[in-house]
Amino acid sequence: MSTKIIMDCDPGTDDAFSIAMAVASDELDIFGVTTTYGNVGLDHTTNNTLRILDWLGSNIPVYQGIDRALLGTLVDASEYHGATGLEAPEIGQPTSTPREKDAVSFLIDTLRSSSSKVTIVASGPLTNLAVMLRLAPDVVSKIERIVFMGGSTDYGNDSPAAEFNMLCDPHAAQIVFDADVPKTMFGLNVTHQVIATPQRVQAMRDLGNDAGRVFADMSVFFEKVYRERYDFDGSALHDPCTVAWLLRPDLFETRKMRVDVETNSGLSFGRTVHDIWNIAEKGCHTDVALSADADGFFELLTNLLSKLR
Amino acid sequence: MSTKIIMDCDPGTDDAFSIAMAVASDELDIFGVTTTYGNVGLDHTTNNTLRILDWLGSNIPVYQGIDRALLGTLVDASEYHGATGLEAPEIGQPTSTPREKDAVSFLIDTLRSSSSKVTIVASGPLTNLAVMLRLAPDVVSKIERIVFMGGSTDYGNDSPAAEFNMLCDPHAAQIVFDADVPKTMFGLNVTHQVIATPQRVQAMRDLGNDAGRVFADMSVFFEKVYRERYDFDGSALHDPCTVAWLLRPDLFETRKMRVDVETNSGLSFGRTVHDIWNIAEKGCHTDVALSADADGFFELLTNLLSKLR
Amino acid sequence: MSTKIIMDCDPGTDDAFSIAMAVASDELDIFGVTTTYGNVGLDHTTNNTLRILDWLGSNIPVYQGIDRALLGTLVDASEYHGATGLEAPEIGQPTSTPREKDAVSFLIDTLRSSSSKVTIVASGPLTNLAVMLRLAPDVVSKIERIVFMGGSTDYGNDSPAAEFNMLCDPHAAQIVFDADVPKTMFGLNVTHQVIATPQRVQAMRDLGNDAGRVFADMSVFFEKVYRERYDFDGSALHDPCTVAWLLRPDLFETRKMRVDVETNSGLSFGRTVHDIWNIAEKGCHTDVALSADADGFFELLTNLLSKLR
Amino acid sequence: MSTKIIMDCDPGTDDAFSIAMAVASDELDIFGVTTTYGNVGLDHTTNNTLRILDWLGSNIPVYQGIDRALLGTLVDASEYHGATGLEAPEIGQPTSTPREKDAVSFLIDTLRSSSSKVTIVASGPLTNLAVMLRLAPDVVSKIERIVFMGGSTDYGNDSPAAEFNMLCDPHAAQIVFDADVPKTMFGLNVTHQVIATPQRVQAMRDLGNDAGRVFADMSVFFEKVYRERYDFDGSALHDPCTVAWLLRPDLFETRKMRVDVETNSGLSFGRTVHDIWNIAEKGCHTDVALSADADGFFELLTNLLSKLR
Repeated sequence: MSTKIIMDCDPGTDDAFSIAMAVASDELDIFGVTTTYGNVGLDHTTNNTLRILDWLGSNIPVYQGIDRALLGTLVDASEYHGATGLEAPEIGQPTSTPREKDAVSFLIDTLRSSSSKVTIVASGPLTNLAVMLRLAPDVVSKIERIVFMGGSTDYGNDSPAAEFNMLCDPHAAQIVFDADVPKTMFGLNVTHQVIATPQRVQAMRDLGNDAGRVFADMSVFFEKVYRERYDFDGSALHDPCTVAWLLRPDLFETRKMRVDVETNSGLSFGRTVHDIWNIAEKGCHTDVALSADADGFFELLTNLLSKLR
Repeated sequence: MSTKIIMDCDPGTDDAFSIAMAVASDELDIFGVTTTYGNVGLDHTTNNTLRILDWLGSNIPVYQGIDRALLGTLVDASEYHGATGLEAPEIGQPTSTPREKDAVSFLIDTLRSSSSKVTIVASGPLTNLAVMLRLAPDVVSKIERIVFMGGSTDYGNDSPAAEFNMLCDPHAAQIVFDADVPKTMFGLNVTHQVIATPQRVQAMRDLGNDAGRVFADMSVFFEKVYRERYDFDGSALHDPCTVAWLLRPDLFETRKMRVDVETNSGLSFGRTVHDIWNIAEKGCHTDVALSADADGFFELLTNLLSKLR
Repeated sequence: MSTKIIMDCDPGTDDAFSIAMAVASDELDIFGVTTTYGNVGLDHTTNNTLRILDWLGSNIPVYQGIDRALLGTLVDASEYHGATGLEAPEIGQPTSTPREKDAVSFLIDTLRSSSSKVTIVASGPLTNLAVMLRLAPDVVSKIERIVFMGGSTDYGNDSPAAEFNMLCDPHAAQIVFDADVPKTMFGLNVTHQVIATPQRVQAMRDLGNDAGRVFADMSVFFEKVYRERYDFDGSALHDPCTVAWLLRPDLFETRKMRVDVETNSGLSFGRTVHDIWNIAEKGCHTDVALSADADGFFELLTNLLSKLR
Repeated sequence: MSTKIIMDCDPGTDDAFSIAMAVASDELDIFGVTTTYGNVGLDHTTNNTLRILDWLGSNIPVYQGIDRALLGTLVDASEYHGATGLEAPEIGQPTSTPREKDAVSFLIDTLRSSSSKVTIVASGPLTNLAVMLRLAPDVVSKIERIVFMGGSTDYGNDSPAAEFNMLCDPHAAQIVFDADVPKTMFGLNVTHQVIATPQRVQAMRDLGNDAGRVFADMSVFFEKVYRERYDFDGSALHDPCTVAWLLRPDLFETRKMRVDVETNSGLSFGRTVHDIWNIAEKGCHTDVALSADADGFFELLTNLLSKLR
């Protein structure tokens, strides 16, 4: 039986892996992809989503979302992802366009009308989900789980304290954390274990198909900052951990704990706060990934890429 | 020529005055009333809005809004307004019901389809307006002005630093302050000058009509906290300053300045920050009311009440 | 009977007025002057204190204090006071030097050994007093009152929210606010009523003595920012309100209320929070000046200047 | 050649281990022990320091420090350490008393008069050191290094975000972090690796001397919370990591990075922020311990205990 999902993302290099893996999988039924600003501006992320889906030959509908954080600040991560957010020349410009309905309306309408619960896979700032939760609190009962990339139990990447997606819109993230739905979180503490080393990239390339070559190239483009700033042996594939966990939860060790996010300005703005010892006794909704089987992850990824063009 | 308005409110005693004044006036064309949680919970504020409009014989449509602050906290002011938010036994239960469309959709659709600009009169927490601005940034070009009650240039009332409407949802308020539309603000510094003294209440009662008697009674009910905590000689009529200014801007002295609101937790949470000397040079969108002609206000109010049943 | 005082200050133009008024008065017994960084750096403020006292022929001892805020930030106000903090060429360089003992030790030793209570008059950041209170909490019983310039019930001057002395070291200010001693506060809300208009400056000059001429010249130098930024008809004499109140409390209307200061970073950092309605019920130690008799103030000032050289 | 140290501590069970280890070592020359409030109130921590030193037959002088945080808040950890902070009946009441000089004066005088640099070993809130740094900034040149227990790169223990010593006085901690002296930090991330398991406690007891028995008993008393809340197999010996590192730096892996502490109220209040990737480029003064050789630590500890009575 397939898992019904909606993907909310801001492609972005590693989001592209997420989408490709989800499309390649037989076990996920993708109702639609909603876009959010984030790695680059909303126009680029929407365009990149269409580029990927068109290139993959998928006709999954795309819905454009909100263009900035609740409190309005715009940051970007083009240092990592390039000016347009997806440096992949082989993936041309899209022929399809986003649907007329906006992302939040699509989320609300789809959840309300779905006969069974839907899983939301989020790999960007959580603004769309936050506005959905305030506009239509009834949809909570239709959400199976929110699986997201964001935060960190230890170090940040966009500030010393905070991970990029959380820092983009900490207020939206807190709204999501407060929602009474199960959540699974993939923070930097675990995604920094999922490194596309040269050997692993070579395995993609060795597939011999278009997808293997294109995603191998994207990994190499993406790894620059990871080598320079982090001294990693390749890029970290943050976002696809979400899809990987849906397909193979055994690849990750998780622990349930209360998670909140710092919404006060200052050093810790956007940092996730993890009550691992349940000190605050506020109730636990989030399964936080603490470690990954990186070899298993790349085996899964390569296998899925092999099913694509 | 009439001014087209949408009222966003949380009745609440003083909101009731606002609505009555707007209905009584010939110069305001009320497209609809949207409701927000605030003085009491959303169910009560929506019901109170319907009660008032039904009692006044008005068929202005009512749209129910968002039920809590962006960040989720709920406070209430039933200490001031009574358990249901409108202690007015003569105003019975409503026969009409809110429209099916939600407040945010009504706001967006009305603004988008209006041939001319619309003024929004807000007298509660600004959550509906904030979500509207993020979901549909294009509507900004259709807003003539946002006239709101909230904040203070000096002292708070719900905390030492913050006024109630701002403290309810400071994040929403900041979104509104950041929007590129003209705004007029009525904070406690000026609404605490607009006191329903016994003499002024008697003038309402002396009208001899239902409205005079009912609103006189409401003033008396509402004044308890003002006498005990503030040592005022009657209740402060906060919200109707907005409608009064639309009808008679000469009753108020205003000064244009940048206004922001403190969204960090701590002593100042929810406080409005007024850059009267333009120190931060961030641009000025808000005309802040600094003083009121209270006698003129009550003359206007009494005159409008005389036109009602 | 004279009032025993220690002055803690950062001259600074308006501090110079304070010192001159205190020296001229027969009713104040000045045990010493301690210096703090503030309007300009500590070296300048200490030197300026010595310059003034030497020029006045006073041998009141001077003690140098702490050179920066508790949390370390340094700001300055040379925009108002000139590069050295006291643009008064007629007041030459000092021949005397500060005492060897540091300001905090002087404060602690003097208070401990005094047979009666001592009033502290503070017109700069409150760092010295804060460190004194933590190092020697027993001295609280020897403090008659802390009379200080700082904060505001309405608008700030160094940020939209905060007054300069408070913003310099909000953490120190909070330590002082928390101390169980009576306090009298002169914030911008009242010191902005005490304007050295051309007519009032002329009255100083007309005294015909050195002091009249020198302080008239200082007023004129100091007024530049007040004319440009505030559109005032002269400079605001903030600091001398403290000494004036000690001599003539009838010149000011005060109201007792709890005062705290915002120590969280953000828009409100350094703002004083005034619980005028006693909402937080935390106890009231501060008499906050709300209005001034400006004519009476300048009459007192001019009269005191007439007693100097 | 011995290392000159001053210990600043709040015994506290694990501080007692620190003191015992330092006294037992031949390589440390202890100039004095200064006390701080923390695990329990200052009266108790001072008394406990005297109890331990008397019981060990040491005549190292003790100086009482500041009794509360800069911003005044008092918390305690008697849940961990018992009502008096040192549940060790065999260690009787002291016969000696603290010196008359206060801790901050002792620190300043000792550093100023020392012919060579002195290492400060801090295992409580950092209030004494912070006040020393502001009162006498010149002493920085006489500090070899500040080795302290506090903070965490991952989870907190006194709040979800913050470790106890940091939460006690984050403002003081920030003053210490800002000081231009080398620092070595032992946070919960590493001290939670140093667990007094039953086997390790038995090794102390098997020494057969008083110290082995008494410290074994203290470990057992201290482990209650660690078993219940953390599911650890014994108590975590936080503070003695500092002394152990001075004697055997090879027992710990450290990494140099900028560390700051969150001083804004809210979820993250008191949390240390670790710029491991040097994102903020603010300069690095702190060697942060990331892992410990726990077996090596307990071997060292037991060996040192064997040298005592």
